[in-house]
Amino acid sequence: MNPVELIRKKRDGKALTREELQSFIGSFVKGDVADYQMSAFLMAAFLKGMTAEESAVFTDVMLHSGEVVDLSMIPGIKVDKHSTGGVGDKVSLILAPMVAACGVPVPMISGRGLGHTGGTLDKLESIPGFRTDLSIKEYRRVIEETGLALIGQTKEIAPADKRMYALRDVTATVESIPLIAGSIMSKKLAEGIDALVLDVKTGNGAFMKSYDDSLALARALVDIGTTMGKRTLGFITGMDQPLGMAIGNWTEVVESVECLRGKNVPDLMEVTYVLGGAMVFLGGKAGSIEDGIKLCRSSIWSGKAYEKFLQLVKRQGGDVSYLEQFSRYERPRFTFSIVSKSSGFVAAFDTMRIGLVGIELGAGRMSVEEKIDPKAGIILRKKIGDDVSVGEELGILYTDRESAGLRAIDGLASCIHISPSKPEAHRLIHSVVEATGVRTWESPVLY
Amino acid sequence: MNPVELIRKKRDGKALTREELQSFIGSFVKGDVADYQMSAFLMAAFLKGMTAEESAVFTDVMLHSGEVVDLSMIPGIKVDKHSTGGVGDKVSLILAPMVAACGVPVPMISGRGLGHTGGTLDKLESIPGFRTDLSIKEYRRVIEETGLALIGQTKEIAPADKRMYALRDVTATVESIPLIAGSIMSKKLAEGIDALVLDVKTGNGAFMKSYDDSLALARALVDIGTTMGKRTLGFITGMDQPLGMAIGNWTEVVESVECLRGKNVPDLMEVTYVLGGAMVFLGGKAGSIEDGIKLCRSSIWSGKAYEKFLQLVKRQGGDVSYLEQFSRYERPRFTFSIVSKSSGFVAAFDTMRIGLVGIELGAGRMSVEEKIDPKAGIILRKKIGDDVSVGEELGILYTDRESAGLRAIDGLASCIHISPSKPEAHRLIHSVVEATGVRTWESPVLY
Repeated sequence: MNPVELIRKKRDGKALTREELQSFIGSFVKGDVADYQMSAFLMAAFLKGMTAEESAVFTDVMLHSGEVVDLSMIPGIKVDKHSTGGVGDKVSLILAPMVAACGVPVPMISGRGLGHTGGTLDKLESIPGFRTDLSIKEYRRVIEETGLALIGQTKEIAPADKRMYALRDVTATVESIPLIAGSIMSKKLAEGIDALVLDVKTGNGAFMKSYDDSLALARALVDIGTTMGKRTLGFITGMDQPLGMAIGNWTEVVESVECLRGKNVPDLMEVTYVLGGAMVFLGGKAGSIEDGIKLCRSSIWSGKAYEKFLQLVKRQGGDVSYLEQFSRYERPRFTFSIVSKSSGFVAAFDTMRIGLVGIELGAGRMSVEEKIDPKAGIILRKKIGDDVSVGEELGILYTDRESAGLRAIDGLASCIHISPSKPEAHRLIHSVVEATGVRTWESPVLY
Repeated sequence: MNPVELIRKKRDGKALTREELQSFIGSFVKGDVADYQMSAFLMAAFLKGMTAEESAVFTDVMLHSGEVVDLSMIPGIKVDKHSTGGVGDKVSLILAPMVAACGVPVPMISGRGLGHTGGTLDKLESIPGFRTDLSIKEYRRVIEETGLALIGQTKEIAPADKRMYALRDVTATVESIPLIAGSIMSKKLAEGIDALVLDVKTGNGAFMKSYDDSLALARALVDIGTTMGKRTLGFITGMDQPLGMAIGNWTEVVESVECLRGKNVPDLMEVTYVLGGAMVFLGGKAGSIEDGIKLCRSSIWSGKAYEKFLQLVKRQGGDVSYLEQFSRYERPRFTFSIVSKSSGFVAAFDTMRIGLVGIELGAGRMSVEEKIDPKAGIILRKKIGDDVSVGEELGILYTDRESAGLRAIDGLASCIHISPSKPEAHRLIHSVVEATGVRTWESPVLY
């Protein structure tokens, strides 16, 4: 294998064979293909794309660069969910125990926040004592005992992806559908799942801003999953405003716990129920997504989902007393209130910029080394379509950083657009992508 | 400067500004932009191209990454020639002393053979004692004393290009017109020249196989030279067969010396006279290229060009006794004769493959570490259009490597295509590219 020939082949827009991808990626992991050769390949793949078949092979090669967890000793159809990331997206925290409470095992390996988006791991780690760095052995045991586990990527999982992702981040090769799809699916398929539900975000707070790009990504993900023999369903959901009201780590845990206890945060719970319903359906516990949704709702109402969450938190070392009594948690040093300077209706959010304001407050990181302040965050008081009068509170900022907080007051206010007329309603859940095609989601919830 | 943003900008097909290129390339030389970031940038530039202005700025930034030699203390208009490389291209060895003998100073910094092509440095170093590793100070003094110098690239010259070129070679980003043009011109402009003649090869032994690609490269080179305030003329010349009869290092020195002594090897001398005539014209010693050609011819006939060559060889440490008496040179261990199996006319050469056969014999290198055998090479007996009868000699191989030599017998024979009918004549010198446009070269020599 001559790596230069393989880079040239991709550069000239040709598809690489399985043997070629195996050899190229295998040599990269061993260190025989240099970082500068991989980054040239990644840029060529970014600009020239990959065929559907090539993309599936690429994923498979990355998947087998590491351990593929065997969960076959655990009875039941194991189903996970993956979201492409957004602002305020705490769905996993509610959904995983909810689906597990319906009897479907949920093996979930999550990531940290990156860019303007939060990460499930950072949120979970804001619970004092909660451990996400479980070994594969512990991970398997936790699923066996509780029906779910929420851990971080271990070094055994898809090491090729780990190194490649780090390179993509510093070489402007992130936003490529085959590369994103390969990265996501190689990690997800390594978890030991039997089926997968995907939440592909679309809108100004998503990585894919346009519906067409989101649809293309969803199709690519579903195609790969299906080719690899896993039932896969993709949902395209709106990310034109933060999901729910809370943005931050502990603030999002609080909102999740409230929802697990039965509070209805409409957009958040609609997405959670639909994705959860699809998981319960794929997990064989319901005959349709709609029946799955009904089971999910009753697992919330009955308190079983919340019970499952407490069981998991305890099992992974977390101190549930903070969940039972939020006031025990350390308070941020500063709280700032954002008030509206005009009256009318909330028409739009600069969602990505809100995520970035959250990072300024300490809720996220701009580089992997930065530490997160779990207390930092934002609580929104208004969502798109809500009416607002002058002086009314739009949101609250929590931070230990006084000057960042002061700057963020104007920053956040400028991200919330007030218009004199009520905006047109938008779909929250746009469509479902299956192996056989795309269809509009039947029960539209507007926002 | 965020390198990722600049890579993204090029990836998205936008032109970088001077400040951006300065910052990106400057940081690369300092080590603050990593190789993997530069290679991603190079692939993006390869696939998305550069505007004419951007390409000139790119060259200027690379040029000023190192020393720009000041030759202003040397009187006269300093003119150099650059060839994009071919098989048997020993033009520089004849042309540099010929033009210097006409009173035009020739400061020439050359490269080594790479890929299937030979390099002027390797040829010169086949002369026992000849030194090409002169310092900039020595280089300047040799030009002052003799009117020319032939040296290798020093570490002071365009260090950004040196590192970038090494990366391009291993990341399949060599064959890009703006990258090639920037690499060539940054090195040439650093020599201290006032004007430049370019020999852009076209055909199956050139890096640019098609006339259109060669023309595009010639235009890019002439545009950059002109933008940088140097009079620049480009010639597109045929490389569908080796130039002259000799391929190798010492064999090419011998052919060059014979030509300097007045032998007419038609295609070789035609190219040498036209390029030399253009240099003498740009050097202000003739009113036209045609008049320059006349001066060049008389400098050969009078023996002044050969005298100049001997003076230079001595000045750079070479032992001229080998040039005066070729038989003093060490003989290769093996000499193989290639004979024709059919009769007819030589219709075509696989020119690139002939270059590769030469490398097998020891005349070139596949990697920078390989050592060259100066004695190894090929002498052709026939050129395109020549008639051939069965059993007639097509060429001779010289090598110390017996098995490579035996393999090369069939290898070389298969590179020479014999057809029953005389092939159509081709132009040797296709066209001249000036700042104002392209024109067909008026006195066509056919082959």
